[in-house]
Amino acid sequence: MTGRGRLIEGPDVADVALGGALLACGGGGNPAIGRMITQRLLEEHGPVQLLPLTDLDDSATVVAVGGVGAPSIMTEKVSSGREGIAALRMLERYIGRRADALIAFEAGGVNALVPMMIASQLRLPVVDADGMGRAFPAMQMETFSIYGVSATPLALVGNAGNSVVVNMVDSTVAERLIRQFTIIGGGGTAYSAEHVMDGATAKRVAVAGTIELSRALGASLRQYRGNLPGLVATLPPVLGAAGYGAVQVLFEGKVLDVDRQVKGGYDVGLATIQAFGDTGDRLRMEIQNEYLNAWRGDLLLATVPDLICVLDHDTVQPITQEDLRYGQRVTVLGIEAPPLLTTDRALAVVGPGAFGMEAGFAPMAQRLRESGLTWTDPGRAAPRAVRS
Amino acid sequence: MTGRGRLIEGPDVADVALGGALLACGGGGNPAIGRMITQRLLEEHGPVQLLPLTDLDDSATVVAVGGVGAPSIMTEKVSSGREGIAALRMLERYIGRRADALIAFEAGGVNALVPMMIASQLRLPVVDADGMGRAFPAMQMETFSIYGVSATPLALVGNAGNSVVVNMVDSTVAERLIRQFTIIGGGGTAYSAEHVMDGATAKRVAVAGTIELSRALGASLRQYRGNLPGLVATLPPVLGAAGYGAVQVLFEGKVLDVDRQVKGGYDVGLATIQAFGDTGDRLRMEIQNEYLNAWRGDLLLATVPDLICVLDHDTVQPITQEDLRYGQRVTVLGIEAPPLLTTDRALAVVGPGAFGMEAGFAPMAQRLRESGLTWTDPGRAAPRAVRS
Repeated sequence: MTGRGRLIEGPDVADVALGGALLACGGGGNPAIGRMITQRLLEEHGPVQLLPLTDLDDSATVVAVGGVGAPSIMTEKVSSGREGIAALRMLERYIGRRADALIAFEAGGVNALVPMMIASQLRLPVVDADGMGRAFPAMQMETFSIYGVSATPLALVGNAGNSVVVNMVDSTVAERLIRQFTIIGGGGTAYSAEHVMDGATAKRVAVAGTIELSRALGASLRQYRGNLPGLVATLPPVLGAAGYGAVQVLFEGKVLDVDRQVKGGYDVGLATIQAFGDTGDRLRMEIQNEYLNAWRGDLLLATVPDLICVLDHDTVQPITQEDLRYGQRVTVLGIEAPPLLTTDRALAVVGPGAFGMEAGFAPMAQRLRESGLTWTDPGRAAPRAVRS
Repeated sequence: MTGRGRLIEGPDVADVALGGALLACGGGGNPAIGRMITQRLLEEHGPVQLLPLTDLDDSATVVAVGGVGAPSIMTEKVSSGREGIAALRMLERYIGRRADALIAFEAGGVNALVPMMIASQLRLPVVDADGMGRAFPAMQMETFSIYGVSATPLALVGNAGNSVVVNMVDSTVAERLIRQFTIIGGGGTAYSAEHVMDGATAKRVAVAGTIELSRALGASLRQYRGNLPGLVATLPPVLGAAGYGAVQVLFEGKVLDVDRQVKGGYDVGLATIQAFGDTGDRLRMEIQNEYLNAWRGDLLLATVPDLICVLDHDTVQPITQEDLRYGQRVTVLGIEAPPLLTTDRALAVVGPGAFGMEAGFAPMAQRLRESGLTWTDPGRAAPRAVRS
């Protein structure tokens, strides 16, 4: 590896965790837990070199790592990163060579940090990129798989020495076995090392810059704690520079109901939010680990792969899906996905149809224009219901 | 390996398959298919050395191999033994050493032969023993696991390059993942290489002599085709010499109903047989891949681990569970299990309680004595219903 790229040190970790939690659309793990584990490891083992995607050697062996399973369970199981190292070592032993760099397979309060947890202990660099540019519930939804990298061989480590190396031709089939392993061998979660690729391939298939993006978003979230307009004003340029599209406050209100269960290894459910003042105006969001869509009455405001993010209304900090509770006051934010997620090839895997929705994909801004609602300054507030 | 032990050649294979199918209690695969594949491989690659368990070097590396999944599906998927070799190679690569000898994990028309299919191609000896002395539906039911050998690391090969290496502390937990793999990655079946052990351990935990026993049983089945009394007269000495107990014809009649489905990777169901002449006298057998028990009315005549075997009434040849059909004329045979299956330690795993039955285990002969039926010469016919 070249020596370029900044060092991620203890204080950066909190920002990456926080920004990762925003990008993760409710998934990707709890940032407080991700921060706590990673800061402790970096204190003990030293900082981690964050390598720009473009600086990666074309011949380097890159391995994607992270936690899989139901976030509601992941949050209960604090990890030392030991399972991640075990998964990486098992995979390396199987493929007969060592990783030169690690990459996150998704954004998230934990999953943006898992590569750092491992890298710090093994003195490896982490690539400034990930495989989703957000979080999604299934492995085949990683851009690595979408653009042709085999997810397997893949190593999974669960509880108490339970582990597997998986070889599957099809990532979607592998994902089904992974879910079963998390349930059977991991009590609901596991650590995965997967998508072995060379540097040249990573440059083609990864969503670039998302660790630095997470750090910048995290810094804004910290700086504008309790100040929604302040935060939202800073988001478009930061997100836009990383290739994301429009940003819009979609709704503000109180959580009326969260119907959620662990099903087939996922958190699955429906969250309903009612507008302040109980005007009857409600937002519904379907959940599969992440928020998949946002319905305001019978208007579909946004769907995967566009990002739907929930903030605490008062602190303006991200709330992960598993922490969403009745009575919370929240602000729902929409962010248009980066281009790697909206090609025809990607939409076939991460578009609304892939989640069983009837609607086709349309970018959020287009949906909002066609909604008949009047959209005000995105930084200010959700639109009034002035449909004629 | 020492050079002792007989050679298994083409003509022996039909007998091993047939006798294995009898011991397998309906499971273990179809003997016609096992014979066909194995004979072809032995013709091409040469005979296989069958090594008495006692002749195995104490330091030899022994690996158990066979097919797993729903027999009803296994029968539809004729194999070349290639998946078995792939599973063995994957396991060897993972553990970093080569197998010195192969062993069957269960008896059966296919599974007694899978070690030979592989051994012939790789010029390895096969141990004259197996891990069940019959067939059972789950891996933790192998005597290897029962007496302390870890089932894992274990390699499974399914369809089209789908494969896994599994490490699980608990064989019962590993079995659950294996079933999921057969469903997800194998279309219902897979080949397994597992239970790596040294020769000294194999001598302690394997059911000795069951390949030669299968061959002898197969020879008797061939010799006494269509002659039930002739066959049954030869069984007690042959089975007794191998440690099995009493032999008894339990019922003769016509298959009234087979309610069977593939469920969780197993064939699961209930077979009902009515006595000839429709006296209302019926035998019911619960199925989980194998026949688990035999109820005559409200009398429990036999349960796992004792063997319940079904023969065609006219040809006196074994009928595998997946081939049992409405209208078939059948003879049901009970055979008391060998001692390794009836210790307290074994009964906890392969006794009636392990299959959810309320009854405790009692050896078949004791159940029959206490049944109030009059039992005639075991070789002649099922007892008359002369209960007072």
